Order: sequence, then structure tokens, then C-alpha cells
Amino acid sequence: MGAVKTKRMPRAVRERQMLDAAVRIFGRRGYRAASMDEIAELAGVSKPLVYLYLNSKEDLFTACLRREATALTRAVREGVRPDLPADRQLWEGLRAFFAHTAEHPDGWSVLRSQARTHGEPFAAEVAAMREEIVAFVTRLIAVAAREAHRDPDLPEREVAGLAEALVGAAESLAAWANTTPGVTARQAAATLMNFAWSGLGALREGRGWVPPAGEG
Amino acid sequence: MGAVKTKRMPRAVRERQMLDAAVRIFGRRGYRAASMDEIAELAGVSKPLVYLYLNSKEDLFTACLRREATALTRAVREGVRPDLPADRQLWEGLRAFFAHTAEHPDGWSVLRSQARTHGEPFAAEVAAMREEIVAFVTRLIAVAAREAHRDPDLPEREVAGLAEALVGAAESLAAWANTTPGVTARQAAATLMNFAWSGLGALREGRGWVPPAGEG
Repeated sequence: MGAVKTKRMPRAVRERQMLDAAVRIFGRRGYRAASMDEIAELAGVSKPLVYLYLNSKEDLFTACLRREATALTRAVREGVRPDLPADRQLWEGLRAFFAHTAEHPDGWSVLRSQARTHGEPFAAEVAAMREEIVAFVTRLIAVAAREAHRDPDLPEREVAGLAEALVGAAESLAAWANTTPGVTARQAAATLMNFAWSGLGALREGRGWVPPAGEG
Repeated sequence: MGAVKTKRMPRAVRERQMLDAAVRIFGRRGYRAASMDEIAELAGVSKPLVYLYLNSKEDLFTACLRREATALTRAVREGVRPDLPADRQLWEGLRAFFAHTAEHPDGWSVLRSQARTHGEPFAAEVAAMREEIVAFVTRLIAVAAREAHRDPDLPEREVAGLAEALVGAAESLAAWANTTPGVTARQAAATLMNFAWSGLGALREGRGWVPPAGEG
């Protein structure tokens, strides 16, 4: 990257190079340990130019979060064909999610490392992305319940809880898949789909796990 | 709290009051927005005393994380009777987990908000706690697979993936349960147990979801 001629590049291209470098450094070092010097060097530009374009370390990080969150939600949305049955939609959504997080491990690391850090100016960005994904999964589970024969209406709260559980499981699995050699996006999606769909099917068909009677 | 006589208190009691106050403020405001003034006021002590006892905001936060992580893992460990079958152990572990996070919402918020923030001096504390819980769940799933009739040996990687998924689902559900009025610890545990156990049962019995053939 250091060899490219930066002088003649359009601003958008340069900015993209800076964001690429920033995502990589933030993803590997964490927000605090990341250095603007290293980011500028990796982007092949001067540090003052990074500040000129992105203003501050915090604004640069916020720009990274926004770009990565937008790309991930778009990948999931575009990976799903809405005319398919709910289980196929969920499968395609999971595959798109794990494929994207596997292809963008630094981006996922940035999103995941900051996903819960509240009280920060950029936390709202990530929270909004997660809410969109939870809402999408909630709709799919509700549709699945309608498509099922026995119990067409899972209680709304049960559906919301399942969606939260599924999204949390996917977040955890994506980080694990990215740090475990040889786990493919398809395998991660299949593990979770098996887990989720079978559990959901058991619930719908009244085959769920029954808590022991007489417990406090 | 402001009315207590602080002069005659043993150091351990005063330190506990400071940590109680710090967990509450960190849990509600986040690390950066939390103010040492507010923490000292809530603890009913002077700000210099907080610094004298806990050294710095960062050290105070690390002490909070360590205390809350230790309390949570102890609650889960003590909630499980190791002589029971694996499904009962998992059920009891989940109940203990959700009961503890419901009783200590600020502590959970502190743990969860920082659980992924890497590159920070305190990140290792939380990572170690999570690894202990993942290892515990992994053992239970492996035992469950052995106790099952058909497929006594789930592949090791499948077991590890399921444990990661289950822990991620529990983390996500605990935060949801704490912010959704009327969701009890028992309901949260039952939702996840149903989801997890049925899915695991389906896997063991070869009733898992089958990806569409011929897909890329």
C-alpha cells in the first residue's frame, strides 16, 4: 500500500484506504491500543491527512463502525430471498452472516468488541444494527410459527426471547469460527441452524424440555 | 448511604461500599461517562478516599469486574449438583446464571459491556471468566452426548461450537430479560433450555435440520 501514488487519488478512494487500514488496526489492537501512526502508515498516507479527512481517532472509529455495520446488515439482507419458506430464509440469513464475518474478521472484531460498550458516542450505531437484525430474526420465527401446523401462535414474548437467543448465539459463534482453524461459514451456519431450528420445531410441536416438577 | 458513619468502619466494609457504588454507576453510565464524584457520593465517602483505597478509575473498574466475574462463576458453580444427569445440570446452571444476572443487573451490565473490549488491561479478567463457563458447558454437552443412546460421540468441534452458541445465547438473553419487564429468571432459563436441549437432542438423534442439497 505504501507504494501507491496518493497525490492523484480521488478523495473517496483515499478515504476508503484509510478506513480499510483503520478497521484492520482497530480490529487487531482494540480501540485504545490502536495508534494513528500505524493506521496512517498502513494506509500509505501521512497522519495529518488522516486527521484532515476523518477529524479524530474517535470519529475515525465511528466511521469504521458505521461502514462495517452497514455492510454486514446489507450482506444479510441481500443474502435472503423473501419468497422462500421461513426455515430457508433463516438458513440463508445465517449463511450470509457467517460468510460476511469470515470474510471480514477485522470488521467483525471491531463491531463485536464495541457492541456492548455503552456510554460511548458510537454505541448507538452498533445497537441500531443489532436491533435491525433481531427484528429480522423475530419476523422469521413468527412466520415459522404460523407455517407450523400445531401451534400457530407462539407467545410474542417467547418469539422475542428466541430471537435474542439466536442472535447472541450467532455473535458468539462468529467470533469462535474466526479464531478456530478449519471452521467454515457453512459449518457455523449449519451448527446454529440445527440447534435453533430443531429447538424451535420441538417447541412448536410440544416436544420441548420439561422443567422438573415441584421445583422452587 | 450518605447517612452512615464512615469513620469507624473497617477497611473491608468501606471498600465493599465503594465497589457497590462503582458497579452501580459503571453499570448504568458506562466506563467513560461514569464519574468518580458520583461514585464517592453514592458510597458516602470522599473522593480522595476512593483514590486512596482503589488507586484510579481504571483500577476501581478492574476491581469491579473481578468481583462481579468471581461472584457470577461461583453462583453458577454452586447452583449445579454434579451428581445429576447432564440435562438437569444444564438446567440448574442456566437457572443459577439467570437468577444471578437478574439479581445483579448492574454487575451484569458491567461484565457484558466490557466482555468484548479487547486491548484493555481488564479484558483478560472477563475473558478468563467466560472461558471457564464455556468449558463447563462444553463438558455438560459432551456428557449429554455420552448419555444419549444413538450417537455417543458428537465430534469435538461440534460440541465446542454448541457450547459457544449456548453461552452467547445466554449472554444475549440475560441482557434482554433484565430490560424486559416481567421476564423471570426461570422463564429465561426455560426458553434457552428448550431451545438448546431440543436442538441438541435432535442432533444426537439425527433429526437435525438438513441444508438444501446442491447448494453452493
